[in-house]
Amino acid sequence: MSASVLLMSMSADGYIAGPDDRPGNPGGDDFMRLHEWYQNADGEVGRPEGEPGVIWDELNATGAVVVGRRTAEQVDYYGGDHHGVPLFVVSRNPPSIPYEQVRFVSDIETAMAQAKAVAGDKDVLVHGAATARAALQAGVLDELQLSQIPVLFGSGLRLFDVLPHRIELEIVRVIDTPRATHLRYRVRR
Amino acid sequence: MSASVLLMSMSADGYIAGPDDRPGNPGGDDFMRLHEWYQNADGEVGRPEGEPGVIWDELNATGAVVVGRRTAEQVDYYGGDHHGVPLFVVSRNPPSIPYEQVRFVSDIETAMAQAKAVAGDKDVLVHGAATARAALQAGVLDELQLSQIPVLFGSGLRLFDVLPHRIELEIVRVIDTPRATHLRYRVRR
Repeated sequence: MSASVLLMSMSADGYIAGPDDRPGNPGGDDFMRLHEWYQNADGEVGRPEGEPGVIWDELNATGAVVVGRRTAEQVDYYGGDHHGVPLFVVSRNPPSIPYEQVRFVSDIETAMAQAKAVAGDKDVLVHGAATARAALQAGVLDELQLSQIPVLFGSGLRLFDVLPHRIELEIVRVIDTPRATHLRYRVRR
Repeated sequence: MSASVLLMSMSADGYIAGPDDRPGNPGGDDFMRLHEWYQNADGEVGRPEGEPGVIWDELNATGAVVVGRRTAEQVDYYGGDHHGVPLFVVSRNPPSIPYEQVRFVSDIETAMAQAKAVAGDKDVLVHGAATARAALQAGVLDELQLSQIPVLFGSGLRLFDVLPHRIELEIVRVIDTPRATHLRYRVRR
């Protein structure tokens, strides 16, 4: 069955972006520190070697993406192409952009329903802190794939911050590497 | 060589206490959810079975404890006896208490130096969120033993909250169990 899966890299103290996160400095200062685990020796992004490669493969096997407008704008909607699948952006005030694969939806429930319909039996990739919280609160997030990096950022943007109620998780998989601890959780309902 | 080791259980979103944390409700609402991993079927606290038992053994092999006054007061200074070793409490305004093993020290650097001297070649156990942050900022924390529980608390007291600078860690050990992911980090200097 198709699942909605949040995919994020975060510091051991829960930050997914550094200070001064804005267009022009997406992810804030030192953002790439959280993403070294899928960079090779030349600093190029790609499928990581060894066990974490499965996370890369799972990402590329998803059939749709749901992302918040703030996150999407910071990276220019991934140039209109996130591994070739439809990109659903949650926004009540959609801008005019030239990308055919990008679809604006006013709320997270509708975005997830449309994304799941498009994805069929494939999973839906969810990205962004605000979108993650909205999906958790609306009860439409199924799993979390968190790559926890051995660094304390100390400040920046938190992934979870404050939620309105306690949410129980189930540990589905732990991949233990020197660069990151990759934790996969299922939301208990 | 002797190391100072922070030992804490925290939720996947970084909380070590729930809302309404105060004397009379130590750890706040649902606090024990974070500590079920060392409770048996009868709800009694004890050495957990399997691999996490090593964390219990390491705790009981430490030669001194450093803890903040707020944390200590909430549990009445562990009745004056934390596995039989001296307890150093950081406070600038020490109260009068009847426990011989408890020693008040005005700052974290002095507390850690005295605790390490007493502990000899044994490790020093560090406990409490404020004390953890103070020790990290002062550069006197060597390792972190975090038991990360599969639950999003959503609110309460954060372990790390805000730190004045980025701190790099090294992953020393990961113990993967259904009840908790036990992460041991070394602070890089």
